Amino acid sequence: MPVITTIELVDLRFPTSESNAGSDAVNKDADYSAAYLRLATDDSTLYGCGFTFTIGRGNEICLQAMEVLAAKLVGRDVAQVCRAPGTVYRELAEDSQLRWLGPDKGVVHLARAAVMNAVWDLAARHAEVPLWRLICEMDPEVLVEQLDLSYLGDVLSAGEAVAMLEEQRPFHQARIAELSEQGFPCYTTSPGWLGYSDDKLARLCREAMDEGYQHIKLKVGGDPADDERRLGIARSVIGPDKMLMIDANQIWEVPEAIERVEALAHHGLLWIEEPTSPDDVLGHRRIADSVRQRGIGVATGEHGMNRVLFKQLLQADAVDFVQIDSCRLASINEIIPVLLMAKKSGKPVCPHAGGVGLCELVSHLVMIDHIAVSGPVAGRVAEFVDHLHEHFVDPCHVSQGAYVLPTRPGYAAEIKAETLAAWAWPDGTEWVKRRQVMTA
Amino acid sequence: MPVITTIELVDLRFPTSESNAGSDAVNKDADYSAAYLRLATDDSTLYGCGFTFTIGRGNEICLQAMEVLAAKLVGRDVAQVCRAPGTVYRELAEDSQLRWLGPDKGVVHLARAAVMNAVWDLAARHAEVPLWRLICEMDPEVLVEQLDLSYLGDVLSAGEAVAMLEEQRPFHQARIAELSEQGFPCYTTSPGWLGYSDDKLARLCREAMDEGYQHIKLKVGGDPADDERRLGIARSVIGPDKMLMIDANQIWEVPEAIERVEALAHHGLLWIEEPTSPDDVLGHRRIADSVRQRGIGVATGEHGMNRVLFKQLLQADAVDFVQIDSCRLASINEIIPVLLMAKKSGKPVCPHAGGVGLCELVSHLVMIDHIAVSGPVAGRVAEFVDHLHEHFVDPCHVSQGAYVLPTRPGYAAEIKAETLAAWAWPDGTEWVKRRQVMTA
Repeated sequence: MPVITTIELVDLRFPTSESNAGSDAVNKDADYSAAYLRLATDDSTLYGCGFTFTIGRGNEICLQAMEVLAAKLVGRDVAQVCRAPGTVYRELAEDSQLRWLGPDKGVVHLARAAVMNAVWDLAARHAEVPLWRLICEMDPEVLVEQLDLSYLGDVLSAGEAVAMLEEQRPFHQARIAELSEQGFPCYTTSPGWLGYSDDKLARLCREAMDEGYQHIKLKVGGDPADDERRLGIARSVIGPDKMLMIDANQIWEVPEAIERVEALAHHGLLWIEEPTSPDDVLGHRRIADSVRQRGIGVATGEHGMNRVLFKQLLQADAVDFVQIDSCRLASINEIIPVLLMAKKSGKPVCPHAGGVGLCELVSHLVMIDHIAVSGPVAGRVAEFVDHLHEHFVDPCHVSQGAYVLPTRPGYAAEIKAETLAAWAWPDGTEWVKRRQVMTA
Repeated sequence: MPVITTIELVDLRFPTSESNAGSDAVNKDADYSAAYLRLATDDSTLYGCGFTFTIGRGNEICLQAMEVLAAKLVGRDVAQVCRAPGTVYRELAEDSQLRWLGPDKGVVHLARAAVMNAVWDLAARHAEVPLWRLICEMDPEVLVEQLDLSYLGDVLSAGEAVAMLEEQRPFHQARIAELSEQGFPCYTTSPGWLGYSDDKLARLCREAMDEGYQHIKLKVGGDPADDERRLGIARSVIGPDKMLMIDANQIWEVPEAIERVEALAHHGLLWIEEPTSPDDVLGHRRIADSVRQRGIGVATGEHGMNRVLFKQLLQADAVDFVQIDSCRLASINEIIPVLLMAKKSGKPVCPHAGGVGLCELVSHLVMIDHIAVSGPVAGRVAEFVDHLHEHFVDPCHVSQGAYVLPTRPGYAAEIKAETLAAWAWPDGTEWVKRRQVMTA
């Protein structure tokens, strides 16, 4: 039976800051990066890939933490690891010396997300099914054993989680059939980066409408006059009926957020995303109390550090759109508990995506949420940003503004060998070329 | 004028797990460690030392992040850095690529704490006064410019912070005189580690009373029968009038915490410390609502990740004793805002200490809080654990259960050269010896 023999780690970075793609009120020079690992086995046909997403500097710090965590997997029997990823997760979580650096937050937590993403990719490849199918077909008792329900005892018991999953099973086949036909609705952030000109903004909004999108999201939080003008342009292009969302990327103080959103409300907004510190549960509640009166919801979670933060956002009724991040929460083990808590609170999960490979992982997560946890799609929409997909062996597909149901085995996390060779930092061929140009 | 020329980094670890010192419900094998740095200048008489505290594995990850942050200081004019440590703090905080790994939490935040601790040590050495005096004698306007008030706009404005500091100035001299005489009261955790035998617990409690302590803290959260027995022993030794506190180190779920503390309340407890996840503001509020009925307060903060968490703990009235950590909050720049918010909420700040060097830093912080921010000492007590002080050039002093007012220039953060040579991981002379013994 195959065994995990080695861990391959790659510091992968793209010079996205050169194009202003990914520019917002806080992140002005994002170089989209992945702290990437591959769990290699002695069976050359079987392996698992995973990563966490960063925006450049610090990617190497995540890799160092990943190396410490992943080392615990070398020599493990693949079948055993794949049978109980929750056991692996707990071993990584229960290293009390590393726990001190969090707990459950920051670099060590991002590293756990990367390693567990690779373990789930391995498990799905081992079962020869797409990850969404592996999860949906697991016996609920077994699935719940894999989950991290610690510190959630006041809102979600294991028994309750099992019952919630059981309740949805009769609907699985119909939902899978529906998803194979229509996919899962997504929205695009591509037109709305802060660094884009008004003309480019208008053009990209028009293109998004042509591609069938029902939602457009714009970055805000710079000069108020710019926000006002850019939203006016977007609304005039997409018309009165399509959904418009705004994203402040944490730039505002709580009172400032209330004031700034109030001033933009007349454009007709579905949500304000990340109005202030991602840690500020009570602040989000105060903002929600104000903006909801204008029919605007509060969206947050892309920087939601762990399940305890999401628990509180839901307990405090501080969030309307739950934006889990596939590389910040510690993979399936921590994500499904959040899906279950959101379902219990009747709040839609609208995952954060974009970056490097987040859309690939999200194309599985939205299917899991719809099929096995939350049911009806109404009101749900997942982010999609159309860049860097060409670097993935099994890229996500979007058609008519919807994520297509993945069909290939795994978690879609594998990056092409030529990409790793070209964009590995600092010695990938493309990075070397760039330095030669600069020094020329 | 002197310039910062080099950054010296040391991975310092002590084998404290061998003695069970530091053993609690979650941290069973703590090897007390410091990710330590020294800012060297071209003026050989001037330097600054700082560190963050960890419990072993992962110390090297903090050092890697410290190296990235501290590199920004090389070549800087010392006078300029010392005139405006807040400018340096903001430069470290505003690296948007590194910010993605938090923001303001985990490894990168611990690293910022270490670097800023060294900057403040340098500033106090440059001014040739103890840090507490440098801070207390700063013009309030200037001091507030050094503080990180971001995301606190809904509770504390800069103007309000200045006014609060101004209000205390007439009392500075009297308070300094009082502290020089009596010091600042502390309690000891030394008797209460979970790994100690009943006899050792009883003996250490007796010794603590002989040394003049008015408070004893015990670790709890293991077998309920053990907690009951050990608290009985401690109470019988210290008598009915001395204060007894318990510390669960985050081991419980919220409902479990309420039940377990209820069962121990008859021993007469001042506080329950870290009953559950340090991130769970609303959970702490629920626990407080219950235990306060038995006269027990909630203490938390040693894992309080940043000022936004403390803001919410205070807003939600979820904490009775605010336990800031000198190496987890990002040094003076983030700590004083928490002192000011606690003062505004009328909650005493009782800093966490112990580990490596936390007591040394706390011996300055409690003086700053008392002299310049909070005033009356009544109800305040700081932690003291009597180990590893011999490794410091300017160790803190405790007399009759009180921290003595520091008199030497700096932040007391400098570690002896011989200690660095002996306990640097993995190649310090003492670690090499240990490996030789093990392999012999």
